Amino acid sequence: MSDAIAFLPPDQAILGRRAQIIADLEDLLPPERLVHAPHRLVPFETDGFIAYRRRPLAVALPETTAQVSAVLKYCHRYGIPVVPRGAGTSLSGGAIPQEDAVVIGLSAMTGILDIDYANRAATVQAGVTNLSISDAVSADGFFYAPDPSSQLACTIGGNIGMNSGGAHCLKYGVTTNNLLGVKLVLIDGTVVELGGKHLDAEGLDLLGLVCGSEGQLGIVTEATVRLIAKPEGARPVLFGFDSSEDAGACVADVIGAGIIPVAIEFMDKPAIEICEAFAHAGYPLDVEALLIVEVEGSEAEMEAMLSSIVEIAGRHGVKTVRECQSASEAALIWKGRKSAFGATGRIADYICMDGTVPLSQLSYVLQRTAEIVAGYGLRCANVFHAGDGNMHPLILYNINDPEDAAKAEACGMDILRLCVDAGGCLTGEHGVGIEKRDLMRHQYSKADLAQQMAVRAAFDPGWLLNPNKVFPLEGRG
Amino acid sequence: MSDAIAFLPPDQAILGRRAQIIADLEDLLPPERLVHAPHRLVPFETDGFIAYRRRPLAVALPETTAQVSAVLKYCHRYGIPVVPRGAGTSLSGGAIPQEDAVVIGLSAMTGILDIDYANRAATVQAGVTNLSISDAVSADGFFYAPDPSSQLACTIGGNIGMNSGGAHCLKYGVTTNNLLGVKLVLIDGTVVELGGKHLDAEGLDLLGLVCGSEGQLGIVTEATVRLIAKPEGARPVLFGFDSSEDAGACVADVIGAGIIPVAIEFMDKPAIEICEAFAHAGYPLDVEALLIVEVEGSEAEMEAMLSSIVEIAGRHGVKTVRECQSASEAALIWKGRKSAFGATGRIADYICMDGTVPLSQLSYVLQRTAEIVAGYGLRCANVFHAGDGNMHPLILYNINDPEDAAKAEACGMDILRLCVDAGGCLTGEHGVGIEKRDLMRHQYSKADLAQQMAVRAAFDPGWLLNPNKVFPLEGRG
Repeated sequence: MSDAIAFLPPDQAILGRRAQIIADLEDLLPPERLVHAPHRLVPFETDGFIAYRRRPLAVALPETTAQVSAVLKYCHRYGIPVVPRGAGTSLSGGAIPQEDAVVIGLSAMTGILDIDYANRAATVQAGVTNLSISDAVSADGFFYAPDPSSQLACTIGGNIGMNSGGAHCLKYGVTTNNLLGVKLVLIDGTVVELGGKHLDAEGLDLLGLVCGSEGQLGIVTEATVRLIAKPEGARPVLFGFDSSEDAGACVADVIGAGIIPVAIEFMDKPAIEICEAFAHAGYPLDVEALLIVEVEGSEAEMEAMLSSIVEIAGRHGVKTVRECQSASEAALIWKGRKSAFGATGRIADYICMDGTVPLSQLSYVLQRTAEIVAGYGLRCANVFHAGDGNMHPLILYNINDPEDAAKAEACGMDILRLCVDAGGCLTGEHGVGIEKRDLMRHQYSKADLAQQMAVRAAFDPGWLLNPNKVFPLEGRG
Repeated sequence: MSDAIAFLPPDQAILGRRAQIIADLEDLLPPERLVHAPHRLVPFETDGFIAYRRRPLAVALPETTAQVSAVLKYCHRYGIPVVPRGAGTSLSGGAIPQEDAVVIGLSAMTGILDIDYANRAATVQAGVTNLSISDAVSADGFFYAPDPSSQLACTIGGNIGMNSGGAHCLKYGVTTNNLLGVKLVLIDGTVVELGGKHLDAEGLDLLGLVCGSEGQLGIVTEATVRLIAKPEGARPVLFGFDSSEDAGACVADVIGAGIIPVAIEFMDKPAIEICEAFAHAGYPLDVEALLIVEVEGSEAEMEAMLSSIVEIAGRHGVKTVRECQSASEAALIWKGRKSAFGATGRIADYICMDGTVPLSQLSYVLQRTAEIVAGYGLRCANVFHAGDGNMHPLILYNINDPEDAAKAEACGMDILRLCVDAGGCLTGEHGVGIEKRDLMRHQYSKADLAQQMAVRAAFDPGWLLNPNKVFPLEGRG
């Protein structure tokens, strides 16, 4: 377990009142919806950012907005910190609790409440998994666009907290571009509704503000999301290159020409080998970098877009162009890509960075990333959403070797500073969490951070909601 | 001039210090950039919401961010209200000043600072007109998507303030979906940068919050916007119907089938007649309602989408389907639509409503709107962005007849309440301004409004920025 990142010291008075707090919460929830036995709290100690863990005071797993409201109202009254949790797949530690906090988990709120094609909208409880939404409307020819690799497990509530992306967000946008409304419970238990099945909303865009706010403004219990009609056809095409720099430059030129495929995913040689060994997707093993470009539409549309891309790739010395020949092959290609993180976990521990860069900097940042990783004597696999400039270097290390872990963390921070210095930012879709909290000062000036914290405090003046995350611990005023 | 909407009483102490304030501002700006002679203030008394006017204390027309910062810092120190102004085309009175306010106008900040195709972005000063951005990149095959009818005059700064839309936003989204970053001057003169040429940004989405905040969080001096490649081809097609309800139901079914053309615009018979008389666009005069549906892409793509739409329109008894045959005919069709407000102004005074409704309610809301207007003994023309459910009834009246004007205002408010009660909201793209300020209580609960006002106050605790607008005058705490 690492300790480079500080947590706020737990409030000893709250820890001393633990029995009373549990008894009080038992009055607010059905018995099976409150977890407090120590061995049952273990699964809630960490999330996808496994280098850090803390055991929470208790875990509430409410079934209704009213129960969420009651628990928040209680915690607000007694000054008890609250950590919201979806499926616990956060890669930035967004759901890692603290000893004096009550976790509010969404896993029991899995209802699909309304499917409304006339308004292209579905309303669901916040604990519904991302993929369940698409599954519920697939037979009618629709889908929900943002598709994080963890979409089988991650919840729409977590997606909203982190403004999650995914491979297919190049064309369709990330969560904030596909979110129409939420039911939000404020820290004092007040329930507000933001947005709805209509264009825009007057006054301040609090819906957009809540999306990506990492559970610090309130807890989302219901979401209304945009449904999109499935295209006539879709096809991933593999483009292999002799260097990462060539592949990166090709991506920048495709986008610079105004061409927007559904997805442009990037894998370097280590990532190709890891994913191919796991998924047997038919990735070429004789190239240094691979792009998976997905085009969609009618045959004619796909051919037209592909021919433009092939022409641009030719200018960057593309070595292999392979169109997939069947739906099953397409599924394998995406299985390989989407299991990249899990497949990497089979061969090493890793931390996954999430910086974004302007596309014009992609090639340079890939090259500098390799130099930084080599400088630490570490290995790295790159597999990421190239069309969006959203980098995901996976830094491989041994979690049981404290020195190796410290090197990996420091290396990751250097890479993120590189992204910021190249005109990008610290996170495209994984959130700041605890992982990147202290780096916020590298991106933002004091005035920037003060303004953000003032807005946060307008929702939660006591900083009870997910307090260890996002903003540096100092200067919170 | 109407007086149904109250203004905050001007601060007499500020009015008494007028000469000193002007002298102080003269130190901060080049001489020609400060307007204070009474006859030169007249053009700044109102905007597109002509029923209300107030003469401001002075008008600053800065050329640089540093000058904006200096003026704001001064006004902040001495508690002087500030009203930001783009081109003064607001239809909700967003730029109408008050007697004790300094107007900060953007008309001198018209520089196009950077065009960057590799990152699909243009950076411009906030006083650049909407159309100038597309004009600057058109020869290279790109454009800026949101296209308000006033795009020849309105500024990108004003577009950001109101989160403006336009006919082509059905496919491409409104301003907030096409805005990548801003330079924002806070009320105390601090300059912050939000967003940039990268996907997303960590922490709270203040960029999204600023978009649509009607100049109440700060003054935007520079904007970085998304550039989009022009399609291979684009073609408007006219669909005529025997009733508004049929046309509305057709729109709902097209969208409900998952088909997203670039634009679906609606005109009823009065709007058709007004626009045809002005533009000679060749609109059919023998129908009760007209849809202008624009499809784009290759010939094959346009044909495929059109055939689906024609099939759906057939189910709603479409009477006329007319594909345009040439680029000049297409230009005329759009000229007719985009000049609708100006053409209406030739025959009567009008107020233009801007409610949005879920598409499933379109037909019902059109029918009820007609009944409400008839109940007041008034006439109305409907011309609006049907695909987005963004209604624009133009209520015709005589501005010189106080009784008629009062009826028109009351009628408009009834229509907006109808939109809210049908699950929609008060404004899709024109903003709340002063026009709809007092109706915010019909849309939002006290808790909703208190939360929004707390966020606003986190930027401008003294409520100096555009204080007569958006939020009801009572309960600002």
